[in-house]
Amino acid sequence: MGKAEGEGRPSGRRRRGRAGGDAANASPKRHTNYRQLRTPFPTMNAFSEDEAHNIHDAALQILQDMGLRVLLPEARQIFAKGGARVDDDMVFIGRDMVEAALDSAPKSIQCRAGARDRDIELALGTLAFQAGAGAPHATDLERGRRPGSASDYIEYLQLTQHYDVFHMISPQVEPQDVPTHLRHYFTTEAQLIWSDKFPFTFSRGTPQVMDCFEMIRDYRGLSDDAFQAAPHTYTIINTNSPRTLDIPMARGVIDFARLGQLSIVTPFTLMGAMAPITVAGAVTLSHAEALATITLSQLVRAGAPICYGTFTSNVDMKSGAPAFGTPAHFQASLAAGQMARLTGLPWRCAAGSASNSNDVQAANENQMGLWGCLMAGSTVIIHAAGWLEGGLTVSYEKLITDAEVLNMVAELCAGAKAGPDEIGLSGAINEVEPQGHFFATSQTMARYNTEFYEPIVHDYANFGTWTERGAQDANQRATAVWKGIVADQKQPGLDMERWGDLKAFVAKRTKDGGAPPES
Amino acid sequence: MGKAEGEGRPSGRRRRGRAGGDAANASPKRHTNYRQLRTPFPTMNAFSEDEAHNIHDAALQILQDMGLRVLLPEARQIFAKGGARVDDDMVFIGRDMVEAALDSAPKSIQCRAGARDRDIELALGTLAFQAGAGAPHATDLERGRRPGSASDYIEYLQLTQHYDVFHMISPQVEPQDVPTHLRHYFTTEAQLIWSDKFPFTFSRGTPQVMDCFEMIRDYRGLSDDAFQAAPHTYTIINTNSPRTLDIPMARGVIDFARLGQLSIVTPFTLMGAMAPITVAGAVTLSHAEALATITLSQLVRAGAPICYGTFTSNVDMKSGAPAFGTPAHFQASLAAGQMARLTGLPWRCAAGSASNSNDVQAANENQMGLWGCLMAGSTVIIHAAGWLEGGLTVSYEKLITDAEVLNMVAELCAGAKAGPDEIGLSGAINEVEPQGHFFATSQTMARYNTEFYEPIVHDYANFGTWTERGAQDANQRATAVWKGIVADQKQPGLDMERWGDLKAFVAKRTKDGGAPPES
Repeated sequence: MGKAEGEGRPSGRRRRGRAGGDAANASPKRHTNYRQLRTPFPTMNAFSEDEAHNIHDAALQILQDMGLRVLLPEARQIFAKGGARVDDDMVFIGRDMVEAALDSAPKSIQCRAGARDRDIELALGTLAFQAGAGAPHATDLERGRRPGSASDYIEYLQLTQHYDVFHMISPQVEPQDVPTHLRHYFTTEAQLIWSDKFPFTFSRGTPQVMDCFEMIRDYRGLSDDAFQAAPHTYTIINTNSPRTLDIPMARGVIDFARLGQLSIVTPFTLMGAMAPITVAGAVTLSHAEALATITLSQLVRAGAPICYGTFTSNVDMKSGAPAFGTPAHFQASLAAGQMARLTGLPWRCAAGSASNSNDVQAANENQMGLWGCLMAGSTVIIHAAGWLEGGLTVSYEKLITDAEVLNMVAELCAGAKAGPDEIGLSGAINEVEPQGHFFATSQTMARYNTEFYEPIVHDYANFGTWTERGAQDANQRATAVWKGIVADQKQPGLDMERWGDLKAFVAKRTKDGGAPPES
Repeated sequence: MGKAEGEGRPSGRRRRGRAGGDAANASPKRHTNYRQLRTPFPTMNAFSEDEAHNIHDAALQILQDMGLRVLLPEARQIFAKGGARVDDDMVFIGRDMVEAALDSAPKSIQCRAGARDRDIELALGTLAFQAGAGAPHATDLERGRRPGSASDYIEYLQLTQHYDVFHMISPQVEPQDVPTHLRHYFTTEAQLIWSDKFPFTFSRGTPQVMDCFEMIRDYRGLSDDAFQAAPHTYTIINTNSPRTLDIPMARGVIDFARLGQLSIVTPFTLMGAMAPITVAGAVTLSHAEALATITLSQLVRAGAPICYGTFTSNVDMKSGAPAFGTPAHFQASLAAGQMARLTGLPWRCAAGSASNSNDVQAANENQMGLWGCLMAGSTVIIHAAGWLEGGLTVSYEKLITDAEVLNMVAELCAGAKAGPDEIGLSGAINEVEPQGHFFATSQTMARYNTEFYEPIVHDYANFGTWTERGAQDANQRATAVWKGIVADQKQPGLDMERWGDLKAFVAKRTKDGGAPPES
């Protein structure tokens, strides 16, 4: 395992070349491990240290003087008990409360997946990717754009499971053909069966969340204590910017903290719409909302696993439409990274694209946003693949073409060596005359199968050969790649006995009426 | 001037929105300056400092013990006079000669263009972009792929001239319909008339080079002394890796150094083909060849303007085809940056794509390569836009879609502010109730026309609107953008009187038989 590249390439597409003949056994096969990454990238700041501290101070001033609207009474009571001033539905949080929360929140979080080599650590310096999340629609070149379905959910899960570079299961696409009071049974079962990665649970009310926790606990064969001792699932908490924490989100923070599961706090602050038009202003607001939510989680249970987070980009001021992968998005990621480092917490940032098809715009926006996250030192990068239309659609082909980029980033995490064998004064440079070639040096012969990343969808054929083969662009080639993976039908998470129990649980809960989402 | 964004957008495509109505006069128009950039990006190393020094030492050892084949007798004589050991066509260069050359080479180079606000400084820390260079073919969606022509050369020049983010004119596309003994007259005249940027001169023998120098000198209205006092044109010197400097390239180094014009030294070292298969080995070889060539230039004239350079990527070991925007390419750029910083010289690095069409692969490869250059701290980034097929073709549409990315990078160079006005506790955050919106705050009203980068080809319309408009992808939309620019027919470099003299010069030289390229 751990070999991510090339697996999805349709058979017959591998080209034969000089290295593919008799000498093919001389060089070992390539093995890579993309499963646990640490970022090799230097962090970049948007602002000076003084400016970053001013933003932090401004955020604390917002929480203390302007306050946050908290719609869930129980959350207001928890804030009040922790020392906050509460006036009607407004909560005013003091600096000391925030500082205590940042002290108690863990700086390293060990997430438990379905297999030990899928476990991940979240901490400043580690790096985890998630595919594009939360889309109501799915699209691919063969079937077109349609409302997300159960079938799409499972296929998309197979695709993200296939590539090791996706470290956490995202709430990828909404299976709209599953009734909402039963949908969480479907998505949780699918994640457990079709994947062995760290699963996601929506915070749509306590009954759903407790159902999901029970399913995961039992399928993983855990006691209550063992389940609560480490996060076995996570949720994403979106504040309602500006300055509002709604009922299901506050409920989720409380439920996940009480049972030791992971919340990733993500104010979604579009500059010029639900946040100030400036990077500094939007990040100030986002930071304030994140600090308030982190404080709530730590008041519920000091030490509860929680990630800082942001999703800050700009709107197009001509149309009001959200834009992604823009300079403002990039700078907001950098600024959020500075804030996250002030807190010391692992944190989530986001790439993404506003494009309507998997075209050059989609690629450029996504990669621009990705580099913003990487240079911001983000721990978890969501919407790193497959996201179109600002999240309204996930594209099967874009998932593949973006996975190519993420694989290359994972390769960069592995670094390069420069010992005598690599420099090759002896074994390479000394073996070749001026104007000669290095195809047959000792160094090349020992490494030609292992030295380079092998792409999954990028094609290096020359123009003539490419034209003869049908002149397919990367988007078209990606169709064959995802179809090959889906046809493979792997169920790495499957445990037949526990699956029987899981199905019995779901059947009983379904008979009892399920659990409608709460709002 | 200095406003780069949006100019090429065809009229009628700008969408009207809430900011486009009566309030449009309340906010000033956006002005940006992309003409002189400094990099805001932290540099990333591929290797430890010890490893970098080992590579430098290995390169010096290559030059001293293995030597370089130098095919031009005059160059060998210059090396010998400078203290090198010469044996037949092999030149062996001592460490002290290299160190003296690195001492005398200027660390900051002031390049003189056709207008003072087009002048650029090349030094570690500055940033200049060039469009894809040296392609035999051109392509666009309307006319398809064809051998490059004079018409393509001029149109491509109009496109690169249009965007301020292209700081130097590259040897973009080969006008194959112009006879080779007259081609340099055509390209030099075209650069002077259609652009006011820093022009390129091919090193294809002394007669051509001296023709070009004379044309540029006279068209710029300079004396010989004034021309030679600063670089008014530049060339690219490709070594013939491994370890060979051929006749026209050595000739170019000598001619350009003698007359104070700029050489950019670029070993083209494809890992596994004309260089070792490892990043460390390829960069060692490239570094040795660059140092030797820099030494030659400084022996000709101490203080002659010269850039360090590299173009190191890998080949696909299955087919032998060159690949770009790969992890190995990225790491080689980082490693070359470490070597360049050891020399202290401004230096050139390269993006690029192996794709056969302007598709997602082309976008992802180019941007991946670009970030390698940016994080390597490259001064000049060539092939930053428009390059397909590993340089066999330049694409009009890709030039536009890549210019979008470069514009966004230029925006990042400008940075962001976080003073009280930007944080907006007062004027923004205090004006909006929880769950309200920021469309009408004082801060938004003052900034909505100026805060965000406005794209040239990216589109933020929603799926329905985009579909109604014809569902054009970015590549298709780029066609309208370049056609609008070409139709505009601007000649910013045109000086009617000097153009008359220039035409007379070319007519006379043509009558005298021109100047065939030398090899």
